[in-house]
Amino acid sequence: MDNLIYILNGPNLNLLGKREPEIYGADTLEDVAAMCVEVGAGFGLEIRMLQSNHEGEIVTWIQEARNHAAGIIINPAAYSHTSIAILDALNAYDGPVLEVHISNIHRREAFRHHSHISARADGVIAGFGVEGYALAMRRMGSLLS
Amino acid sequence: MDNLIYILNGPNLNLLGKREPEIYGADTLEDVAAMCVEVGAGFGLEIRMLQSNHEGEIVTWIQEARNHAAGIIINPAAYSHTSIAILDALNAYDGPVLEVHISNIHRREAFRHHSHISARADGVIAGFGVEGYALAMRRMGSLLS
Amino acid sequence: MDNLIYILNGPNLNLLGKREPEIYGADTLEDVAAMCVEVGAGFGLEIRMLQSNHEGEIVTWIQEARNHAAGIIINPAAYSHTSIAILDALNAYDGPVLEVHISNIHRREAFRHHSHISARADGVIAGFGVEGYALAMRRMGSLLS
Amino acid sequence: MDNLIYILNGPNLNLLGKREPEIYGADTLEDVAAMCVEVGAGFGLEIRMLQSNHEGEIVTWIQEARNHAAGIIINPAAYSHTSIAILDALNAYDGPVLEVHISNIHRREAFRHHSHISARADGVIAGFGVEGYALAMRRMGSLLS
Amino acid sequence: MDNLIYILNGPNLNLLGKREPEIYGADTLEDVAAMCVEVGAGFGLEIRMLQSNHEGEIVTWIQEARNHAAGIIINPAAYSHTSIAILDALNAYDGPVLEVHISNIHRREAFRHHSHISARADGVIAGFGVEGYALAMRRMGSLLS
Amino acid sequence: MDNLIYILNGPNLNLLGKREPEIYGADTLEDVAAMCVEVGAGFGLEIRMLQSNHEGEIVTWIQEARNHAAGIIINPAAYSHTSIAILDALNAYDGPVLEVHISNIHRREAFRHHSHISARADGVIAGFGVEGYALAMRRMGSLLS
Amino acid sequence: MDNLIYILNGPNLNLLGKREPEIYGADTLEDVAAMCVEVGAGFGLEIRMLQSNHEGEIVTWIQEARNHAAGIIINPAAYSHTSIAILDALNAYDGPVLEVHISNIHRREAFRHHSHISARADGVIAGFGVEGYALAMRRMGSLLS
Amino acid sequence: MDNLIYILNGPNLNLLGKREPEIYGADTLEDVAAMCVEVGAGFGLEIRMLQSNHEGEIVTWIQEARNHAAGIIINPAAYSHTSIAILDALNAYDGPVLEVHISNIHRREAFRHHSHISARADGVIAGFGVEGYALAMRRMGSLLS
Amino acid sequence: MDNLIYILNGPNLNLLGKREPEIYGADTLEDVAAMCVEVGAGFGLEIRMLQSNHEGEIVTWIQEARNHAAGIIINPAAYSHTSIAILDALNAYDGPVLEVHISNIHRREAFRHHSHISARADGVIAGFGVEGYALAMRRMGSLLS
Amino acid sequence: MDNLIYILNGPNLNLLGKREPEIYGADTLEDVAAMCVEVGAGFGLEIRMLQSNHEGEIVTWIQEARNHAAGIIINPAAYSHTSIAILDALNAYDGPVLEVHISNIHRREAFRHHSHISARADGVIAGFGVEGYALAMRRMGSLLS
Amino acid sequence: MDNLIYILNGPNLNLLGKREPEIYGADTLEDVAAMCVEVGAGFGLEIRMLQSNHEGEIVTWIQEARNHAAGIIINPAAYSHTSIAILDALNAYDGPVLEVHISNIHRREAFRHHSHISARADGVIAGFGVEGYALAMRRMGSLLS
Amino acid sequence: MDNLIYILNGPNLNLLGKREPEIYGADTLEDVAAMCVEVGAGFGLEIRMLQSNHEGEIVTWIQEARNHAAGIIINPAAYSHTSIAILDALNAYDGPVLEVHISNIHRREAFRHHSHISARADGVIAGFGVEGYALAMRRMGSLLS
Repeated sequence: MDNLIYILNGPNLNLLGKREPEIYGADTLEDVAAMCVEVGAGFGLEIRMLQSNHEGEIVTWIQEARNHAAGIIINPAAYSHTSIAILDALNAYDGPVLEVHISNIHRREAFRHHSHISARADGVIAGFGVEGYALAMRRMGSLLS
Repeated sequence: MDNLIYILNGPNLNLLGKREPEIYGADTLEDVAAMCVEVGAGFGLEIRMLQSNHEGEIVTWIQEARNHAAGIIINPAAYSHTSIAILDALNAYDGPVLEVHISNIHRREAFRHHSHISARADGVIAGFGVEGYALAMRRMGSLLS
Repeated sequence: MDNLIYILNGPNLNLLGKREPEIYGADTLEDVAAMCVEVGAGFGLEIRMLQSNHEGEIVTWIQEARNHAAGIIINPAAYSHTSIAILDALNAYDGPVLEVHISNIHRREAFRHHSHISARADGVIAGFGVEGYALAMRRMGSLLS
Repeated sequence: MDNLIYILNGPNLNLLGKREPEIYGADTLEDVAAMCVEVGAGFGLEIRMLQSNHEGEIVTWIQEARNHAAGIIINPAAYSHTSIAILDALNAYDGPVLEVHISNIHRREAFRHHSHISARADGVIAGFGVEGYALAMRRMGSLLS
Repeated sequence: MDNLIYILNGPNLNLLGKREPEIYGADTLEDVAAMCVEVGAGFGLEIRMLQSNHEGEIVTWIQEARNHAAGIIINPAAYSHTSIAILDALNAYDGPVLEVHISNIHRREAFRHHSHISARADGVIAGFGVEGYALAMRRMGSLLS
Repeated sequence: MDNLIYILNGPNLNLLGKREPEIYGADTLEDVAAMCVEVGAGFGLEIRMLQSNHEGEIVTWIQEARNHAAGIIINPAAYSHTSIAILDALNAYDGPVLEVHISNIHRREAFRHHSHISARADGVIAGFGVEGYALAMRRMGSLLS
Repeated sequence: MDNLIYILNGPNLNLLGKREPEIYGADTLEDVAAMCVEVGAGFGLEIRMLQSNHEGEIVTWIQEARNHAAGIIINPAAYSHTSIAILDALNAYDGPVLEVHISNIHRREAFRHHSHISARADGVIAGFGVEGYALAMRRMGSLLS
Repeated sequence: MDNLIYILNGPNLNLLGKREPEIYGADTLEDVAAMCVEVGAGFGLEIRMLQSNHEGEIVTWIQEARNHAAGIIINPAAYSHTSIAILDALNAYDGPVLEVHISNIHRREAFRHHSHISARADGVIAGFGVEGYALAMRRMGSLLS
Repeated sequence: MDNLIYILNGPNLNLLGKREPEIYGADTLEDVAAMCVEVGAGFGLEIRMLQSNHEGEIVTWIQEARNHAAGIIINPAAYSHTSIAILDALNAYDGPVLEVHISNIHRREAFRHHSHISARADGVIAGFGVEGYALAMRRMGSLLS
Repeated sequence: MDNLIYILNGPNLNLLGKREPEIYGADTLEDVAAMCVEVGAGFGLEIRMLQSNHEGEIVTWIQEARNHAAGIIINPAAYSHTSIAILDALNAYDGPVLEVHISNIHRREAFRHHSHISARADGVIAGFGVEGYALAMRRMGSLLS
Repeated sequence: MDNLIYILNGPNLNLLGKREPEIYGADTLEDVAAMCVEVGAGFGLEIRMLQSNHEGEIVTWIQEARNHAAGIIINPAAYSHTSIAILDALNAYDGPVLEVHISNIHRREAFRHHSHISARADGVIAGFGVEGYALAMRRMGSLLS
Repeated sequence: MDNLIYILNGPNLNLLGKREPEIYGADTLEDVAAMCVEVGAGFGLEIRMLQSNHEGEIVTWIQEARNHAAGIIINPAAYSHTSIAILDALNAYDGPVLEVHISNIHRREAFRHHSHISARADGVIAGFGVEGYALAMRRMGSLLS
């Protein structure tokens, strides 16, 4: 489907709005989805919002996206720093990939400074809060129009 | 529940008592559970003993513990050294967290010397054999009383 | 002035649109300014667009921004990786700071992966092309409204 | 079963023959299985071919192999570089273990040069294309005869 | 003496209960001794509690323990991180050795993460407060019974 | 001139007394100059106080000092950590060089621990607040008398 | 000659079958040659088996192979880890290159984990004992047919 | 005592004036004491000058200073680079701490560039010769007045 | 202009012939220019000799060279080791670039061993004294003829 | 002989003009010799051109040069990066030594960036193609005249 | 005294002959002294044999040796790897210094490979068993005769 | 032959007594041989003194020693730091191996601090001048008697 964007979320993001609000803010993943639907509408894009605590499930969704999605927005959370499997799945995907981090990972612990995923992502946005998802949707709109 | 302790066990601990007994001893995870039930009883604590080979499942159990457990005892096994996802889940948990390793990981291969989980754990006990679980239960008793 | 955003650009960005278009695209800095004026208008924001090849001049502009700008968008270019002086100037600035890189610096040479500026920036956006500036303006709009 | 070989495949290998053929070639995992069945027959060996994107599932299969398989051939793919859990499972396995990589991982990105699994594998073969599986089957034949 | 445990304490532990109580708690070394005497009694063990600011004195006590003590519990404090002399003395000791740290050294400065002593200790317990001593006594009881 | 001391100040020191007073104190660079004039008078020394945000300008002043100054006191600020050009200029200067840091750089971020300039400075003083300038003037008095 | 394979062996391999049989096995280099002749016959390939303790001589043989050999199988032994000269010679060779190590170098000392030669080899096989040579011959057969 | 300053000197400083005068100068520790008494008098401060070759003794003196000294000036000499025990003792001390090195340690061997003590010291002065003690006394005067 | 060569000189090279003659020799930059004019004449080349202590000014001159110079000879001096801005400017320049160092930087301090500029330079010459400029001019002659 | 220059060439340089011409060009070592003879003639210098794939032979030639050569020009090729034996031989040689690399080794793989030989060479020239030899001959002319 | 040699022994060497005989042999320190007296007699040398577990005491003995000993033989044991204080004391000593290790420290744990003392010692002997002392005495005889 | 000792010398040692006498002294290799013959006679040992600039030749001699020599004394010179081939040859040798360095390699350049050979040598002696050979002969006498 030419107008579907997969929005993939890594471990613990199901807690969004519930854990450590001083870092991640008060919006939930549902709020984020609503925001993305709205932005997407302006570009004729639809979204499929997914979250998993399992590295393998995220790999599988990315493989599935090969046949179903025009682009991928991914917030790999902790798997940014440890998963080469997700990187490899993205390497086998042809469309645009945008990486989102809610907090500015470069101001946190050193082990959060490096993301395996960035080696494949076309763009990376960090520290823009959940608004980062909306801005990534806008960029998807530009790239796919 | 104010008196429930989650005891979480990482990959391959289902083989406890069956693999490499010169490192891990002859007790099984069931023996460990029995030992913990007994110690817990002295402090009015109950336990829920869980084991998984899946990083994501351990993350999910920790999230669940946010509403159900007064404390977490965790032996992350191999995931100690590779999982930031489990660390993040624990960071979103408010109660006491104790980390147990059956063997003294500091006397083994260099890649076992560092545990991501220790950055969150209140206490760490390693090389006390399976008795480490029982001693962690005692500490839980002190902390929660 | 409560509605003025400084947009600071580091060395060689005066060549934007003229050098290595396969990395940086065909838009010039003037095109970027026009884009930012337009986005800013929607939020009641004005901009001051500046570029210098001199580290010291960028430091001075940031100092000046302390009294004149409600926020700073900065593309430090090569100085991202080498300038602590710019970081220190930003540390003395109180408003929001957003860091923009046109290309995804994490896919380029290793010495481009680390930015001193990110230690101070509230948010970082890289690899969104010159649209990154416009998206940063939107974020400024949200933060300052 | 004394003549059963487990052939375990890590994440994204279900895409074999479909992704990045310039690196991985055009054969699918089914083609590989057929090739291994044929070679195995010459040695009186049978195979069980498995693939998973889940680290935990691979761990579980290796544990299962303790009672069912005379040897393990494993292509851990991305988990080669990040999984100590799989290493630990193999450490608890007594039979021969052969590690296969389709491409020569030493000619690719630096993070692919190190395999945790090699610390346990009896032999490692890389860059022989999918024929590496067949050659590993031959070696199994020699080792188990 | 088959039932004597040496409990050795490194530099600044004479200040226990007096310095930085937010890290080390309010109990003094005398309180710790009393706690250990009590636990030991349950196992038929006696203790000899010693503290020194001198690395050489601790070395000498460990040498003395070769003829007098059935086991050693040691909190090497700062010398954990810098003393190979204490490690060597322990290498020349045959009985069980348990290492205690009152705080969780893995959550503090990086130079406190590595302990030379752990390369010899049978078990290590950190972050259990002064209760760590009592739990180490229990473990001694198990090991020596 | 045998009794002239150049006091050179690096980037952002023009903000002294205005930025981050919890780190740098409330005195301005003018206050510092007055203090140094007073101390210098006791030794028959005069001063020339200079500040620049430009690395190149500081290099030029040091070159100029070759013919005009009996000694150099320098607070290179951020350029301490990044400028070899300033080091080279000082290497071409024959008189005494004293390096001043208002804060104790060794207690701050790791990238502030190393100063290129210290490889040439005769003495270094850090963490004595702005009084460090006055003490450096005293030392100049001793060295030049 | 289109059907000639050079089999090059590095230092100390003339001792094969005589030194450290627990690591290298009991077969001699002559046994290996016989095995390779046999496998080669099935593919219409002939071999030239060479061994030298001199890095320079191996370089010369590789240069010679440019005009005489359809492929190179090389066990560089100790020179794997230290010789860029051999790598450079191979870089000037156009045919397929397969690298063989009798033992699994990744389970031995750390300095044996890296091979300069692997940066050029099409495939690498390690820990398959001397059978590794025979399997490399098979692969040559596939590649050249 | 509110006006007593402990001046603590590490190993080999008893040789001051006798060893390596090209590095350390010709003044003895007694000369230094006289100089400090004189400077102190101007601020109403008295001093207690101590020197030891024993790390443990220095630790003990710092502990003693908790009840007797308004401030500590310390030249830890070789223990700067190796003693965490002295750092810990200083961490348990509440008053101002100034660190003195006679030579500029940053121009000497690399292992002298890092001082554990600097992580606690309020100020550090190096390369000002023995005059560094006198200047540290002046700073004490400012801090305590 | 097809026959103009920019010869750019970094910080402190205006002191050439005046500072540290044991390292840099007795010739001044004017002597160097004369030498280059003479060599250039033999190839029909003219030169523009420039020197600056400002990184930004060198960047600007390189940008200017894009429209005016057939080739660039650059002695970046201290900026070799610290400037990515100059590297980026050169990356945007299409003609040949030759890098000159008067002394052999590989025999000096370790921080002088790496030059960012070498990643772009076509050739590098170091330790040939000021004659290195003349030889670089000859090479320019060959390359542009 | 006061006018003889040894020109020593390391492994694989006998292939010059035949291997990887995009890196090394089309001239052969004989062409280089002719070029050097011609340049040498202008300075009254003769040459002895040697090439070996054996580190030991190059060492021996350098020793021989002690009695026969007024200067050494050396292109150590791969041995630049691995041979301390050649460095030691050069350390025992008193005349001028110039190091030549045909390609710019700093733009190639990281392991080619460091040359042991540069620690002894008076000058280093890289990336000037085979003309580098001729320019080195010119420098020899200057140094020996 | 011109013919007195200090033989200094570090921590745990008082256990010589009693601990880990497979590493250190069966001779005691008294046996070593007897051996040294005998060898010394042949050269007209006398010895003073000392051992301490205290770093500070060894420092003091070396200082004392400045006035009493013609040479120092030192086995610093564990302090080899951790003591800069002992190095500094030796730096203040003018006579010959020989360093002895009974075992070959280079074959043991990595942290035993580096000795601070070797930076000052004229000679180092390791792995010659206690005979190393006798051979060092012979060398002293040669050096002092 | 049970009483033959191979004394192997690496590159440039044929220059002994002729090069850099301030480091290596004035004795030639022949003088060393005479010294060793004399010491050997006292123990009933004979010697075979060999020197080569070729790594491969030294490997071959060590292989030969397997059948002819009761022990090996080796001064690998530059190959100490770079040759794993020599280490491997020694690993295949059963008798005692002593490593000699004339100078104290630990006081020289950092790349001389590590010797691959020491991982196999029974003992290492460095900085005892050529007398080190004689003392190694004595040790051989002890070991073989």
